[in-house]
Amino acid sequence: MYTPALPEQEIPYSTERIADVARVLSAYGDAIAIRMYGEPAGWVYGGAHRHLEAFARWASVPVINMECDRFHPCQALADVMTLREQLGGLTGRRLCISWAYSGSGHKPVAVPQSLLLAAVKSGMDVTLAHPPAFALDPEIMLAATRFANQTGAHVRVTHDLLDGVTDAHAVYAKSWCSLAHLPTRHGDVVDERAMLAAFEPHRDWCIDAQVLRHAAPGAGYLHCLPADRGQEVTDEVIDGPQSWVFQQAANRLHAQNAVMAHLLNPGCLA
Amino acid sequence: MYTPALPEQEIPYSTERIADVARVLSAYGDAIAIRMYGEPAGWVYGGAHRHLEAFARWASVPVINMECDRFHPCQALADVMTLREQLGGLTGRRLCISWAYSGSGHKPVAVPQSLLLAAVKSGMDVTLAHPPAFALDPEIMLAATRFANQTGAHVRVTHDLLDGVTDAHAVYAKSWCSLAHLPTRHGDVVDERAMLAAFEPHRDWCIDAQVLRHAAPGAGYLHCLPADRGQEVTDEVIDGPQSWVFQQAANRLHAQNAVMAHLLNPGCLA
Amino acid sequence: MYTPALPEQEIPYSTERIADVARVLSAYGDAIAIRMYGEPAGWVYGGAHRHLEAFARWASVPVINMECDRFHPCQALADVMTLREQLGGLTGRRLCISWAYSGSGHKPVAVPQSLLLAAVKSGMDVTLAHPPAFALDPEIMLAATRFANQTGAHVRVTHDLLDGVTDAHAVYAKSWCSLAHLPTRHGDVVDERAMLAAFEPHRDWCIDAQVLRHAAPGAGYLHCLPADRGQEVTDEVIDGPQSWVFQQAANRLHAQNAVMAHLLNPGCLA
Repeated sequence: MYTPALPEQEIPYSTERIADVARVLSAYGDAIAIRMYGEPAGWVYGGAHRHLEAFARWASVPVINMECDRFHPCQALADVMTLREQLGGLTGRRLCISWAYSGSGHKPVAVPQSLLLAAVKSGMDVTLAHPPAFALDPEIMLAATRFANQTGAHVRVTHDLLDGVTDAHAVYAKSWCSLAHLPTRHGDVVDERAMLAAFEPHRDWCIDAQVLRHAAPGAGYLHCLPADRGQEVTDEVIDGPQSWVFQQAANRLHAQNAVMAHLLNPGCLA
Repeated sequence: MYTPALPEQEIPYSTERIADVARVLSAYGDAIAIRMYGEPAGWVYGGAHRHLEAFARWASVPVINMECDRFHPCQALADVMTLREQLGGLTGRRLCISWAYSGSGHKPVAVPQSLLLAAVKSGMDVTLAHPPAFALDPEIMLAATRFANQTGAHVRVTHDLLDGVTDAHAVYAKSWCSLAHLPTRHGDVVDERAMLAAFEPHRDWCIDAQVLRHAAPGAGYLHCLPADRGQEVTDEVIDGPQSWVFQQAANRLHAQNAVMAHLLNPGCLA
Repeated sequence: MYTPALPEQEIPYSTERIADVARVLSAYGDAIAIRMYGEPAGWVYGGAHRHLEAFARWASVPVINMECDRFHPCQALADVMTLREQLGGLTGRRLCISWAYSGSGHKPVAVPQSLLLAAVKSGMDVTLAHPPAFALDPEIMLAATRFANQTGAHVRVTHDLLDGVTDAHAVYAKSWCSLAHLPTRHGDVVDERAMLAAFEPHRDWCIDAQVLRHAAPGAGYLHCLPADRGQEVTDEVIDGPQSWVFQQAANRLHAQNAVMAHLLNPGCLA
């Protein structure tokens, strides 16, 4: 099998049209699970997602998004599962989704975007905290607002970490890249210098014990892992009693199993 | 495990004699399935097949050829299965196996060679169509003639695409390389320039709707996939009602299962 | 998942602290099997083993050493199993563990070290034969003496191949590197020139039929495979009637299954 490609990116004897790959794989298994972001899509934002959409269009079996450049829905399911286990009902509970510093700019936005959508759908009040250069996809923000209106949740954006963390019941802080510095055309490369320059002024966006003290008593720290220790979060926090990250990681397995059970054996989860 | 090698190509701490690999693997599983052609055998025609023969000599479990540089028998089983499903009895049915143009010269001859043998064994009348520089292995042609004599099938070679397609019940058109331009000694490289020069004059060997109209009414188009769309075949044909390629791809699974069932549980298919 | 790393070797967005990897993997499976030696630990002797120790410290499921730079315990189990099948009771039986020449210096010491420990624990008298520059880890030698005292076994070192082989009931001869020429600090590289210079004077350390004739009648030849034929051992020996290597290779499967059965279903082997 060659590299699955969209028609406009085909190269003979190197790529195979997704329409063909999807139809063939549909004959071989009960579902197609795809993880694609970053380099394989040339870091063009949305490019990986378009590959998944092409698979979904042509496949006759379910296509599971294992993380693309826009969404990471299976992670979001494990995130919400963990929040439910820790907080009980989620309506009106306060979640801070915060950007955090990292020495690397190769950080997709899929995790915070899917989490934002899943959290407001679950009725949580979300404060999104990030430096101005790290805004999420405006389409996602719009969708979050729409879902929030349906569930009565609130969405708020702040550019101040402490403001975001204050009184939160859970703090989900991780690094993500600046969408403004991703290439817009296939074949262009990431401007690494500009990307890292956007990160550097914000080395203080790190969740340490002092920051976490501003959250509600007993608030949890969440991260999808792997974490850049000493940059995104201190050892003290991620290894401490308020860290929910290993429970969260374990829930990835259960959430993934639930997705497969739901898709392959509808009704079994009823 | 190191790279399995024939005695004359051994490199300490990098390769392992096939005699050893085959005996060890025979202790670990119920069969050994091998796919090897092109680069790993230095593109020397027959070199990959010799590796498989060495495995078969030393293994004490069945060795399954998943495609070497001479044969692709499992593909041929799926091909014949598809022809049977579409045409019913194959005796006297007409199959055109045609060369097709591609922008790449890295195309083994295993598929047309195994198909030719399987088709005449099944009693089909085969017209092999290719430009003069793309003749198949003379030993295979001889074997095909012998099998044809046994089954009453006919084999014919033409250097004219339309002549080959005319009145065929099925057209199996794909690209393959020119055996004359493969290296004959291990360590030599493919003369890419000469190889592609052999391809270039024949850009018109593409199955489009107009060509396919010369075949018998309702004739099918077959290809083992992945196909070089726009070169070997047009979108209109491969995505059209006469395309049998996705049924054919699905049959790969069933043919492969049948091979394993036959080898590992003899009698179960009776 | 990034490359699991010890805290002092972490690189953001490229490695993940073993403490995290071990805890996450513990939630996903019933055991963690790790194979690590050579390049991934920069060839610093003991460096790979420290990675495994970190996994064992943080994992909540069993960690199986599939070969590190100090030990290869699963291989040793298969080795002792083979010796038992061939020799019956092992108490007082004589095993020669010998260094052998190879054209490559990339040879860990894990196999002879674990075998030495397993053999004396089984009550075998072991003669360790190697040129002076190829001494094993002094800590292992000390442990071997301690175990030998417990079982009544004897351990002896010789720098003469024939002395080592004479009267042995089994000869386990393979190449290993000179610990003196491995780097001691992470980031340094192997001095390949010095390493190979240590090997070159000892091309005669090869088990051929003449050498094997010095062993006890019917003595067996053992090797963990892959073997460098013509360097460590001749074709005549490894393919001859005194070769136990393929039985030994087959026993890897059974020993590994026993390890898993023991760890995952304690009591099942009673």
